[in-house]
Formats: sequence, structure tokens, C-alpha cells
Amino acid sequence: MRWLAEVHVALRPGIADPEGQTIGTALRSLGYETVSEVRSGKLMSISFDADDESAAKAAIGEMCRRLLANPVMEMATWELRAELTDADEAIPA
Amino acid sequence: MRWLAEVHVALRPGIADPEGQTIGTALRSLGYETVSEVRSGKLMSISFDADDESAAKAAIGEMCRRLLANPVMEMATWELRAELTDADEAIPA
Repeated sequence: MRWLAEVHVALRPGIADPEGQTIGTALRSLGYETVSEVRSGKLMSISFDADDESAAKAAIGEMCRRLLANPVMEMATWELRAELTDADEAIPA
Repeated sequence: MRWLAEVHVALRPGIADPEGQTIGTALRSLGYETVSEVRSGKLMSISFDADDESAAKAAIGEMCRRLLANPVMEMATWELRAELTDADEAIPA
């Protein structure tokens, strides 16, 4: 079964975010003076196979820990949904 | 009134995404062989003031067009929500 995960990797609160600060400064200098905090992060969408939902959750959690996020400075959250493929539809339930 | 916008900037479909491809290759070489497409994008959370919801929507749409996304290669989508502050609570309705 095919799964689609949306993984959001953000810096932990309290860790300096120079990219976000730069965007904030740029927005204020464009005239949006009330912009205060800007935090920037990454959003990755990953498509992969797993037998069932618990296997998919385990796989994506492991991917986050092993590669996608640096646990010292970053926090990863993810959403998972099943992707319907033609093959799934062809299999009688 | 204070608003919090979550802006997602992603490359348009069809535009090559070398960062996503690299992440996909790395995941496959770590043993997740079924990982196929990986698309990477940015997620920014921006806090700003606006009088009402329509003013807030107009402001964030303008920020996306003017600074946050390159309309030739990127697509910006956003979610907006009101942020309750102490000042709002102090004003009787």
C-alpha cells in the first residue's frame, strides 16, 4: 500500500532562526511594520510503500530520526495519509 | 488584531527539485527502497497585525507575491488564524 507523508521540520523553540529573522526584516522594510516573529522550516512530502498504517508510521518516524531532522536543533512532525493507486483498486476487498 | 499565517512555498509541479531528489536518494540508500517522489518546500510562520480577516488575507497574499514566493517557479499556499492576545481579551466586546 502506498502512503504519502508530509513532514514538517522546524527549529526547536529558542534556537536562533537567522533565515526567519531575515524574512521578518525584509517584510518590515517592505512596509509590513507589524510583522513580528517569523519562523522558517521545511516541509517535505514523501511517497513510500508500507503494509499497513502502523508500519507506515514506524517507517516515517524512523526516517525523521535517521535523516530528515537533526534531533539536537530540530523538531519533526508529520501527517500521513494513504494514497490510492490503481493496484489497490484492482484488489477486491 | 494579531494574526498568525502559515505559508507553504513549494516548487511548481514539473519544476526539478534537486533537494527533494537528494533526500529521496539518501532515504533509498538507507534502506527505504520504496520511497519514490520526494518534494521539498518551505513552511514559514508569520505573525502580524491586521484590522480584520479580509485585511489579513490581503496582506498575507501580498507578502507572498512580493517577497515569499517566486511566482515563476514556486507556488504559495497559506493558512491564517487569529491569535488571541491579552490586549484583545481586555477589550469588552
